[in-house]
Amino acid sequence: MSDRPLTHPGASGPGSAWAAAARLDAADPLAGRRRAFVLDDDTVYLDGNSLGALPAAVPGRLAEVIGREWGELRIRSWTESGWWTAPQRIGDRIAPLIGAAPGQVVVGDSTSVNVFKALVGAVRLAEADDTRGTASRGTVRDQILMDAGTFPTDGYIAESAARMTGRTLVPVPAGDLPSLAGPRTAAVLVNHVDYRTGELHGLAAVTAAAHAAGAPVVADLCHSAGALPVNVDALGVDFAVGCTYKYLNGGPGAPAYLYIRAEHQARFDSPLPGWNGHREPFAMTPDYRPAEGAVRGRVGTPDILSMLALEAALEVWDGVDIAEVRAKSLALTDYFLARVAALAPPGSLVPLTPAEHARRGSQISLRCDGTAAVMAELVRRGVVGDFREPDVLRFGFTPLYTGFTDTERAARTLAAVLREGTR
Amino acid sequence: MSDRPLTHPGASGPGSAWAAAARLDAADPLAGRRRAFVLDDDTVYLDGNSLGALPAAVPGRLAEVIGREWGELRIRSWTESGWWTAPQRIGDRIAPLIGAAPGQVVVGDSTSVNVFKALVGAVRLAEADDTRGTASRGTVRDQILMDAGTFPTDGYIAESAARMTGRTLVPVPAGDLPSLAGPRTAAVLVNHVDYRTGELHGLAAVTAAAHAAGAPVVADLCHSAGALPVNVDALGVDFAVGCTYKYLNGGPGAPAYLYIRAEHQARFDSPLPGWNGHREPFAMTPDYRPAEGAVRGRVGTPDILSMLALEAALEVWDGVDIAEVRAKSLALTDYFLARVAALAPPGSLVPLTPAEHARRGSQISLRCDGTAAVMAELVRRGVVGDFREPDVLRFGFTPLYTGFTDTERAARTLAAVLREGTR
Repeated sequence: MSDRPLTHPGASGPGSAWAAAARLDAADPLAGRRRAFVLDDDTVYLDGNSLGALPAAVPGRLAEVIGREWGELRIRSWTESGWWTAPQRIGDRIAPLIGAAPGQVVVGDSTSVNVFKALVGAVRLAEADDTRGTASRGTVRDQILMDAGTFPTDGYIAESAARMTGRTLVPVPAGDLPSLAGPRTAAVLVNHVDYRTGELHGLAAVTAAAHAAGAPVVADLCHSAGALPVNVDALGVDFAVGCTYKYLNGGPGAPAYLYIRAEHQARFDSPLPGWNGHREPFAMTPDYRPAEGAVRGRVGTPDILSMLALEAALEVWDGVDIAEVRAKSLALTDYFLARVAALAPPGSLVPLTPAEHARRGSQISLRCDGTAAVMAELVRRGVVGDFREPDVLRFGFTPLYTGFTDTERAARTLAAVLREGTR
Repeated sequence: MSDRPLTHPGASGPGSAWAAAARLDAADPLAGRRRAFVLDDDTVYLDGNSLGALPAAVPGRLAEVIGREWGELRIRSWTESGWWTAPQRIGDRIAPLIGAAPGQVVVGDSTSVNVFKALVGAVRLAEADDTRGTASRGTVRDQILMDAGTFPTDGYIAESAARMTGRTLVPVPAGDLPSLAGPRTAAVLVNHVDYRTGELHGLAAVTAAAHAAGAPVVADLCHSAGALPVNVDALGVDFAVGCTYKYLNGGPGAPAYLYIRAEHQARFDSPLPGWNGHREPFAMTPDYRPAEGAVRGRVGTPDILSMLALEAALEVWDGVDIAEVRAKSLALTDYFLARVAALAPPGSLVPLTPAEHARRGSQISLRCDGTAAVMAELVRRGVVGDFREPDVLRFGFTPLYTGFTDTERAARTLAAVLREGTR
């Protein structure tokens, strides 16, 4: 992560910048996707990394779910309207966005709860592997490794998972995870993109090193899924979790998802074995017999309204190539960094997000003085990002509905606020 | 629970029965509440103990939440629309329905997940009490007692909670819980009303006995809250959980709730310490410092759409006296039992639900031959209940929207189906 202040990379007239941005928008193959969202032209919304904008299909679909499926069919909808199978059906809809073949993703619960399932499941898997002799014998896998920059809830939950499985949680810099994975490692938890800095971590290197050490990997994809290709299947990731209300636009607090790699499903031993994950839930037997497949990751009755809103929201991805999303994301963040450097008072901003594409997610984090006041003024002027204590401005770039003229406006507004002050 | 077949309690002409039912409806102080729901007159809906009917306030409110709060305000709604505080605000709305003073109920997650939080929290509390010497010294609390007739998911989750806290789960008949609670008891889990038989368990006796043994009680209120007075505060219940989609009409899979008795909150040690339960969630500190109050029971980001649908649904309780609900529930179930006994072929039905009021919830369970076919035919004729394997018909009576003429029609239809057969 760079500590140098941004500097002016070269002069360009204001008129030519708007024109250049408009040309980029005109050439953007994803530009038409913006129509799939409810947006107003007065606002540049750069907080889709916190809460994605409303997809246009959602209001009508939810009115139907409430009025017809709940209001008229009532209990019959559990079967007739496909409510019961929604968690796995919507999981399969998310699967291609994270590079997963069908049958490995299930939707439900919060990210925190899914971190608990996945991490305890991973530790138990490592334990079983050691017992079966498929990993190096005689090891005492007493540590859970985690990137120290994790979103806090992952760390809190990992601490509980460690306590309840008799392990010790060891937070280390994300870059050190590959070198520190070893015979004491029971599992590795890594955030694919750092929520604060926007840094993209090398999931391939972490996974390869963890596997070499005989430990499974749990990846938190909250800040990467929907913004860049993830490829959990190809990378060999063992478990993954993620929320659906950021780049997946599922709505406030929309249910999270859990990826359980196919080869682990038969041995996935959930710490939350609710009746929805039972092989025959309506047999109502006192003994728990886990279902086959990712369904085993289900727990209780799913929150159907939030879940079916998510399902409708996912329609915006039909026919979208995630490589194209990534290309536009990098172009937008490059553009923003360059324009902010050109326009903002020298030394007023320090980028936290790495300049290298290979280490950048889809958000730009900038350090500045008076962060809260700067963001409040930006919002007042129609540019919506957010900030994280103590001094980080965050701007999330959502390629499906953010364009280059939006980005030009955001850079100019930020520069103006910094020039003019916020008092 | 009775094993004797229902028999005819005395003759009454069909005309007089309809008239009597109509008189009861006319005198019913809750009759007007039916207008707060979306219902059709063609159907007698006796499955509100599985999925409550749609409250009329929900569709408009959800359209506003989606269109205005998510669609226009977007991220600002977390503060400006009160999303962030919804779990505790809606918890306080549920509190009076279970006899709890404010500040002890928080909404979120599924019932299963809340059973896990509550039961692990209860075991840890008992452990801490023993360590502090407030309970009998020298005990080894190695057992979790549970009513054997529990809804299955509670049992599955309790088994996991037992495993992860080094205890043994001991299922016993609900009636034996008071006599079996003892020095080895770490916690007691009890379903207030049996989901299958509709039997109401004596929560006061269970709680008193558990406390005398130094063990906390976790009560599952899924089948009692909204149907009868619960009085968790007065009874001394330590933790309680419940769903909101049955008698509380919150919608399919609406978030569950967790009651944490005020005196335990400061020591409640959650196994799922997510960031929403942190004292300063937006400080984003790596160490978990739990919030004061029931908020400590929160985990991840709440599913706002489902949660705000629930909030709107709870408006139907404004001004309702739960004692009046209970009186009507008993009158309806008495009426149904008597009319079924009068009309159904002798010996065709065996009630599973106790006849004594003190042991009856708000559902009538009847054993009969060919249960699945009988219920399918009932549904075809507009009387909607459900069945549970292998041979139990369930009819849930929801006093806010079910009347005596509905009940008369249900009894007559059931009797007719049994007389005519279902081939």
